Amino acid sequence: MNGIITLAHGAGGRQTSELIESVFKAHFSNPSFTSDDAAVLDFAGGKLAFTTDSFIVSPWEFPGGNIGKLSICGTVNDLSCMGAKPLYLSCAFVIEEGFSIANLEKIAAAMEETAKEAGVNIVAGDTKVAGKGQCDGVFITTTGIGRVMDGASLSGANARPGDAVIVTGDIGRHGCTILLARNDFGITADCTSDCAPLWGTVEDMFAATKNIHALRDATRGGVGTVLYEIASQSGVGIRLNSTAIPVSGEVKGVCGMLGLEPLYLACEGRLVVFASKDDAEKLIEVLRRGKYSQNAAIIGEVTEDMPGRVVVETEVGGETLLPPPGGELLPRIC
Amino acid sequence: MNGIITLAHGAGGRQTSELIESVFKAHFSNPSFTSDDAAVLDFAGGKLAFTTDSFIVSPWEFPGGNIGKLSICGTVNDLSCMGAKPLYLSCAFVIEEGFSIANLEKIAAAMEETAKEAGVNIVAGDTKVAGKGQCDGVFITTTGIGRVMDGASLSGANARPGDAVIVTGDIGRHGCTILLARNDFGITADCTSDCAPLWGTVEDMFAATKNIHALRDATRGGVGTVLYEIASQSGVGIRLNSTAIPVSGEVKGVCGMLGLEPLYLACEGRLVVFASKDDAEKLIEVLRRGKYSQNAAIIGEVTEDMPGRVVVETEVGGETLLPPPGGELLPRIC
Repeated sequence: MNGIITLAHGAGGRQTSELIESVFKAHFSNPSFTSDDAAVLDFAGGKLAFTTDSFIVSPWEFPGGNIGKLSICGTVNDLSCMGAKPLYLSCAFVIEEGFSIANLEKIAAAMEETAKEAGVNIVAGDTKVAGKGQCDGVFITTTGIGRVMDGASLSGANARPGDAVIVTGDIGRHGCTILLARNDFGITADCTSDCAPLWGTVEDMFAATKNIHALRDATRGGVGTVLYEIASQSGVGIRLNSTAIPVSGEVKGVCGMLGLEPLYLACEGRLVVFASKDDAEKLIEVLRRGKYSQNAAIIGEVTEDMPGRVVVETEVGGETLLPPPGGELLPRIC
Repeated sequence: MNGIITLAHGAGGRQTSELIESVFKAHFSNPSFTSDDAAVLDFAGGKLAFTTDSFIVSPWEFPGGNIGKLSICGTVNDLSCMGAKPLYLSCAFVIEEGFSIANLEKIAAAMEETAKEAGVNIVAGDTKVAGKGQCDGVFITTTGIGRVMDGASLSGANARPGDAVIVTGDIGRHGCTILLARNDFGITADCTSDCAPLWGTVEDMFAATKNIHALRDATRGGVGTVLYEIASQSGVGIRLNSTAIPVSGEVKGVCGMLGLEPLYLACEGRLVVFASKDDAEKLIEVLRRGKYSQNAAIIGEVTEDMPGRVVVETEVGGETLLPPPGGELLPRIC
């Protein structure tokens, strides 16, 4: 592959996938290399889930959280999406010379609080310092180990025609919050990140039914990117009901002003769930009682036709193809 | 803790320890939080080792390796130092906008080659892109899972009076190589990094004897820092024989010109071994047959007196305290 790295390679859409396929998968390919949120591995007779993510969000602090909280949530949620109870985390810091130690304490405190809530222990770490101007503030890489629940067999390749598509809350809040926090557009709105650790949410769903086929947290690239990933991995089509998609008034307003599609704005506390239609109402009932999923909604269904595509039924009864992900230039969102 | 982050916080010496103690351990403390190279955890009835490291070495390519090879070696070696067979790795990239994709391929190829040699699979990854000037080149965080060998019980707290102190090869080559590669001093010397994956070395040693009490790879901070760490963790003194410490002619020359102490220059393919004196000669024999340990040497012994201190017997028969680590300003060495 020729050329240079562009911001689009980090946006989580088409270019990111191409880079992973052509550079990383080409070299690292082995039977355990994952296309899901976490690799599922054999260890001592048990099933272990293993996931890593670097967090470079700018600004490092935002309404609803900071990079520390985000780094724990992201990893806890990736494990949860494989039906794995998060057990152990490691965190590696790259800190810019001149960063305030008081702010580092704030970050560490948020990490600890979020880890406690998720019931997970931070057991290993690393600290590196880069010179002034060689790293922007602080970058954190968290890696997690979880134990896959008995009976859980989740994969982006497991969605089936007839499945209901559920989101666990209103979408796009994290992306919108970061966008506003950067102050690039001179817009103010009362928007708070949805950043949250979701193991409890997943546990509640599994207590209600085992008929969950795929789970993914809609982070970088938003719900739209997740839908295209699952459609591709499972070889199915997805039909959305536009009026059913929960979007807060603030996010709707900001998206309206800037011409953005909420389906492509990042969430950090929302899951996309593919489950048997028969259990969908039961799941919604359970989710709406949960701390982080009170606005859960069935937003569509999986179809046999149009494999690999996502179609949106519009308010007036028409049908339109959701533009495939790619080229969004909202870097350093997570 | 007040103040700002300085380069010394990343040098691996006293200031790094203080930062970890006062900011990270203060928040993350739990029974599994490790002071060793990797945490040892219970999983499904087996003993799992878990370690993470961020690699930000500058320049990213150097005689003897590149950041990709280094990132695999560092993590493989940290697992090996706990007596754990490396099994699975994850790698998270933060790449600067504008970085060449051809160079990224070179890095990925080196990672794959080194992982193959170490018998470990890369199973999960992440890719983030930071804007031009927000990250210097490419940073890689690798995290590893290993399975602790039956009978291995290694810890920095296990060194005992009477133990022999062994280094598995000549010291300081990585640090010296990076220093020269930066061209800050206008010195040229034929120096190559010792960067190597050492699981095979550890396996060979354990096949020879189980009486190994502590193992640590002498990376950032060098052999001197490892010795002070073990002396402190085990509550023992260490007496070195200066004439026995293997240092190549090139490293000696560079250290002489720049007034550096080879004991404080980083290695990336050298272990410090604490083992029963009775088995020391057998270990040296085994090591000298190994690919990466032909210059292995017994460099000293563990003493009951002077706990927490490292003393060097000089060539002329005198005795001097090795200056404790701290304040070395050679950042971004790994």
